[in-house]
Amino acid sequence: MAKDNQFVSQIADIETDFPQWYTDVVVKTKLVDYGPVKGTMVIRPYGYAIWEIIQNEMDRRFKAAGVENAYFPLLIPMSFMTKEAEHVEGFAPEVAVVTHAGGEKLQEPLAIRPTSETIIGHMYGKWVESWRDLPLRYNQWCNVMRWEKTTRPFLRTSEFLWQEGHSVFASAEEAEKETLDMLRFYEEFAVNVLCMPVLTGKKTEKEKFAGALATYGMEAMMHDGKSLQSGTTHYMGQNFAKAFDIQFTDKNGTLQYGYTMSYGASTRLIGALIMTHGDQRGLVLPPPVAPVQVVIVPVAQKKEGVLDACGELLKRLQRAGFRVKLDDTDNSPGWKFNEWEMKGVPLRIELGPRDIESGKLTVFRRDTLEKTDGYSLSEAETVVSKLLQEIGENLYAKAEKRMKERIVDAETLDELLEGVSKGNFVRAGWCGCRACEDRVKEFAQATARVLDKNHTAKICVVCGKKAEHTVFFARAY
Amino acid sequence: MAKDNQFVSQIADIETDFPQWYTDVVVKTKLVDYGPVKGTMVIRPYGYAIWEIIQNEMDRRFKAAGVENAYFPLLIPMSFMTKEAEHVEGFAPEVAVVTHAGGEKLQEPLAIRPTSETIIGHMYGKWVESWRDLPLRYNQWCNVMRWEKTTRPFLRTSEFLWQEGHSVFASAEEAEKETLDMLRFYEEFAVNVLCMPVLTGKKTEKEKFAGALATYGMEAMMHDGKSLQSGTTHYMGQNFAKAFDIQFTDKNGTLQYGYTMSYGASTRLIGALIMTHGDQRGLVLPPPVAPVQVVIVPVAQKKEGVLDACGELLKRLQRAGFRVKLDDTDNSPGWKFNEWEMKGVPLRIELGPRDIESGKLTVFRRDTLEKTDGYSLSEAETVVSKLLQEIGENLYAKAEKRMKERIVDAETLDELLEGVSKGNFVRAGWCGCRACEDRVKEFAQATARVLDKNHTAKICVVCGKKAEHTVFFARAY
Repeated sequence: MAKDNQFVSQIADIETDFPQWYTDVVVKTKLVDYGPVKGTMVIRPYGYAIWEIIQNEMDRRFKAAGVENAYFPLLIPMSFMTKEAEHVEGFAPEVAVVTHAGGEKLQEPLAIRPTSETIIGHMYGKWVESWRDLPLRYNQWCNVMRWEKTTRPFLRTSEFLWQEGHSVFASAEEAEKETLDMLRFYEEFAVNVLCMPVLTGKKTEKEKFAGALATYGMEAMMHDGKSLQSGTTHYMGQNFAKAFDIQFTDKNGTLQYGYTMSYGASTRLIGALIMTHGDQRGLVLPPPVAPVQVVIVPVAQKKEGVLDACGELLKRLQRAGFRVKLDDTDNSPGWKFNEWEMKGVPLRIELGPRDIESGKLTVFRRDTLEKTDGYSLSEAETVVSKLLQEIGENLYAKAEKRMKERIVDAETLDELLEGVSKGNFVRAGWCGCRACEDRVKEFAQATARVLDKNHTAKICVVCGKKAEHTVFFARAY
Repeated sequence: MAKDNQFVSQIADIETDFPQWYTDVVVKTKLVDYGPVKGTMVIRPYGYAIWEIIQNEMDRRFKAAGVENAYFPLLIPMSFMTKEAEHVEGFAPEVAVVTHAGGEKLQEPLAIRPTSETIIGHMYGKWVESWRDLPLRYNQWCNVMRWEKTTRPFLRTSEFLWQEGHSVFASAEEAEKETLDMLRFYEEFAVNVLCMPVLTGKKTEKEKFAGALATYGMEAMMHDGKSLQSGTTHYMGQNFAKAFDIQFTDKNGTLQYGYTMSYGASTRLIGALIMTHGDQRGLVLPPPVAPVQVVIVPVAQKKEGVLDACGELLKRLQRAGFRVKLDDTDNSPGWKFNEWEMKGVPLRIELGPRDIESGKLTVFRRDTLEKTDGYSLSEAETVVSKLLQEIGENLYAKAEKRMKERIVDAETLDELLEGVSKGNFVRAGWCGCRACEDRVKEFAQATARVLDKNHTAKICVVCGKKAEHTVFFARAY
């Protein structure tokens, strides 16, 4: 079938030209288009539907954990950005600045939020007075802007959509715990909703958030073996509390600074999905996050009773809670097969006169490209439920196998370079000094993604001194 | 009870100082706070929870009607704004402009979207080729910015949240139909979710959207008799299609311009809610949109079994699908009563040892301020369901009665002035000329809200010539 596939020929080869494959897939499946301003993207309905599912799934979890949603302003006085020294250094170069509004020059230029620690810190400073007011655990779903030189849809765009959670606690312990809890939260989400295995762990000083004491990241291995940072959590200690006067009276009547943390995940997750599961035919969407989980394609749809039977099956599956689409357009079945395969729909049901007569279903699995007939039409709900479950598990298992196979160890820079060149994550020792970390970047174009929780390495891969940490190095998006 | 209410004393008098009452209520109930940049607002969790319910309810309806969500960029090239002559005249004075980004001056200044007709028109121009591509019916939930001199939380802020729907059709008829359909959609939503009666109808030329051929509005009467525009729909004809080259090949192979329309409703709806239903004690939230529909206040909560019984009732009501909160804080029952009344929770259940022993419920209705005991605890779900229904109906009926009583007719400018001065909507004839409309504004500080669908007036309230329209005039937010 693949040979006749008009779509496949439009998509660049996934093995030899992965960057072009990615661009072809996101544009041709109508997930996204380029906005008129350089570096911006338009998220089209099919892409936005994925984002809505990600939002719903995350939001439900946040609420169950007691986090409340709020909305803070887009525009931040530039003076706020400078209140935390590291923060301004990290973000000022990327900021978009409003200088005029309402036909006049503004007295103070305003930054479009690149992230909201400063403005939320300012409001928390207003709201927090007593230990009774703590903790505050707020999240917002919003757009942010970071002016980037090189951009790619979902992966790096001037404007993107995300959630940013910001909490303030009375104690360092609580804030640190929330920082790790939210990292686990992201991991659970990645595993169960995106069917995506991840590595989680602490970031190095060089890679941490501007203004944080510690940053933790979730990294996923893409099809080409490069790493994609897919969510981060930050422990700020009292840095932002001191910059924004977040002070409270403790139970003994003493004035104390609060401890803050933040965490964020963005439309990048859509890019992660695509590059984790996609194949030569296009998207492969895991069932929990697929806007269309099942597409019903009528066979010989002009024959009496076929569309009726398809419509009935559609209703049954919708009632059972699945996201289902019936493609009753005039296109040929072959055209429909190709289109929905490219769009990554996990299951295709083909239903024609013979199936209807015999009470059977023919089902095509997007993950294995296997077509099976003989399922019972009367048990469609059970069949679909079971297959969607299996597809999710299989996608996770495939991605996990790839990641495990592609984690290699290195004891020298040459081994490290060879490892990342072949599309591996390289586990290696590191003495902890910035010079050695910089040397890895220069020599192998790889960065420290996260520290390995199991510190097993003996010597630094660069200088040969005692290893203080074991690090996962990789090339990264 | 009201005399002991510490909160009531903090809220300005609703009859004599409604503007201050509004400010007191939105701030003290923690719906909103002022952002650091003039004219911006922070939507706090209680306010945002209302917005989330509004979003969910609307979004469900949009999706059922076949509208798809998407996301278009925040930043619009200034040159786009000027492509439709009326549009730029209407919006340019309010635009916030980005001139620098990434540490450099931009080649072309960028507008922060005040509304997205231009950028969506540009993308539709790219996407639409054939009649087969039509219609496109997209909606986005986003932030927009209009630099305003005088601002008030929810009612008029530099940045606000909204949905904006944009459709393009092959024919004028379809686009006009959608413009009226969406107006009815807003009305149904206002009535059933906000329990808010509205007037809907066409706007005058003066009041229409910049660039539209026709604008329709939904107007609601606030507590003080002023009108609040709560949703608008716009028919653009081919204005934007011509400005942005939205062309398609029709079934005969001829190149045609599409017909566009748009519609929007914003966080203003929260202001509408507050000012329609609120009273001296604070918010009164209709059950369909209340983040907390029922609050359970334990009486003598330290007595054995009380908190257990309250917790059990909480679970039962949550299982039945209600949004319920158990206030088990250390505050006194009186303090809790006052707080939740101020926050507008529709129903309060008081549960103490005596109620538990007798298997009875005591229930307080926020709309009527009536407390009733003797409801059966074992039938709590049914009781709550029935009362919430009644509260919604009663709130609608009260607001409708007020609006009907306060629609008066005028045949002279003096009558019109007297009418609006007393907080009425004034129904009057209008010849249709701009000079007479301007005269009403100058003489009575009132504007034409919508045209009455039943044109009954004989003469223009200003010039005495033949009335071409019957208009609802009012002072407006």
